[in-house]
Amino acid sequence: MTLTLHLAPGTISMCVHAALEETGLPYELAWVDFKTSAQRQAPYLAVNPKGRVPSLVVDGTVLTEAPALMDWIAAATGHLMPDDPLTAARVRETMCYLSSTAHVAHAHKFRAQRWADDPAAQAAMAAKVAKNMTECAYYLEQRLTGNWVVDDFSAADLYLWNVTRWMPGDGVEMADVPKLAAHHDRVAARPAVARVIELHTGG
Amino acid sequence: MTLTLHLAPGTISMCVHAALEETGLPYELAWVDFKTSAQRQAPYLAVNPKGRVPSLVVDGTVLTEAPALMDWIAAATGHLMPDDPLTAARVRETMCYLSSTAHVAHAHKFRAQRWADDPAAQAAMAAKVAKNMTECAYYLEQRLTGNWVVDDFSAADLYLWNVTRWMPGDGVEMADVPKLAAHHDRVAARPAVARVIELHTGG
Ligand SMILES: N[C@@H](CCC(=O)N[C@@H](CS)C(=O)NCC(=O)O)C(=O)O
Ligand SMILES: N[C@@H](CCC(=O)N[C@@H](CS)C(=O)NCC(=O)O)C(=O)O
Repeated sequence: MTLTLHLAPGTISMCVHAALEETGLPYELAWVDFKTSAQRQAPYLAVNPKGRVPSLVVDGTVLTEAPALMDWIAAATGHLMPDDPLTAARVRETMCYLSSTAHVAHAHKFRAQRWADDPAAQAAMAAKVAKNMTECAYYLEQRLTGNWVVDDFSAADLYLWNVTRWMPGDGVEMADVPKLAAHHDRVAARPAVARVIELHTGG
Repeated sequence: MTLTLHLAPGTISMCVHAALEETGLPYELAWVDFKTSAQRQAPYLAVNPKGRVPSLVVDGTVLTEAPALMDWIAAATGHLMPDDPLTAARVRETMCYLSSTAHVAHAHKFRAQRWADDPAAQAAMAAKVAKNMTECAYYLEQRLTGNWVVDDFSAADLYLWNVTRWMPGDGVEMADVPKLAAHHDRVAARPAVARVIELHTGG
């Protein structure tokens, strides 16, 4: 099996990268240069016409959407997704909430032009990001009752860590969400995750 | 097993309702009255603090996020989700794209106040909905190659039908996406789905 992950530093592709590293699957990386808007140019659009990362190419088949990639990696390895259907639903619920609500709230800071053309409207969206991300953080804080999202470490922990990394920059006061902050540090301290952070931040 | 689906007419809870009806699971419905903003009042917030539908209560455990509910229903019944991991990834990719991109694009019409407080900014967001939903429709159109999202009918078809239902109202010219329009009608014609439509639209 040949796996290639198309990714960009610091983006939501980080948690998929970390999942590959955690599970020990062999993979190659294909970095997409956001500085030159490579995600919107023909070579990358031929991989993913949506112009977003991550994309995971599995033996020539392109898969996209971070929660779906996490589920595929879990199925391929038998790790990161609990067997019990109700617990698996909790893992997927967390990833889907992060993807459809928290990630979207975050994107209104630097990608507001997706949703309105008027610069004043874009500024109004950016101005509300801290409030919305703080609301997400409070919701996630009250959901965390133990070390991990569910009893055992799972794909949801990697996804949550990825989104929590953005929170200080989005204006969330991390001291107000101590369980979330501790969860973030717990995930970041895992050897596989630490290797990924180093590659995304240049050490 | 006792199942209660909290839902509102015409919302994304429709596809979860249709999945329950398709698979034959016994369930009860708890309608949430958006006209009186019941989704933001204490009784419903005690079910789902996010104040959104759908919520599915499984023997007292509350599960949320439509793609996660679809996966849980599939696991509970052995229907609507293919066994092959790569094909299952395609089903989940489609649902996650619909949830995090298309549904979000749609929500900027009537829920723009989530992302900005300024009424002019909200109007600017609403003004871009037709363009963004059309872009989603074109992407989905080129993905559809057969009768269904993957070879066999799956949860992704119900999800796609639910979001496609919103498109004419969002300004998408359905004549420009004939495969998507035909897919919509194909799903809507299924007896289980027709029963659900009747309940949501009053016949
Ligand atoms: N729903 C997608 C969202 C992916 C996404 O938006 N990725 C961002 C980086 S975090 C991106 O590629 N942005 C590039 C752009 O907007 O040009 C997923 O969960 O995979
Ligand atoms: N990410 C959630 C989104 C659910 C959602 O936004 N539902 C809408 C109806 S389509 C809602 O409950 N809106 C109520 C409100 O915004 O007050 C999911 O996929 O289940």
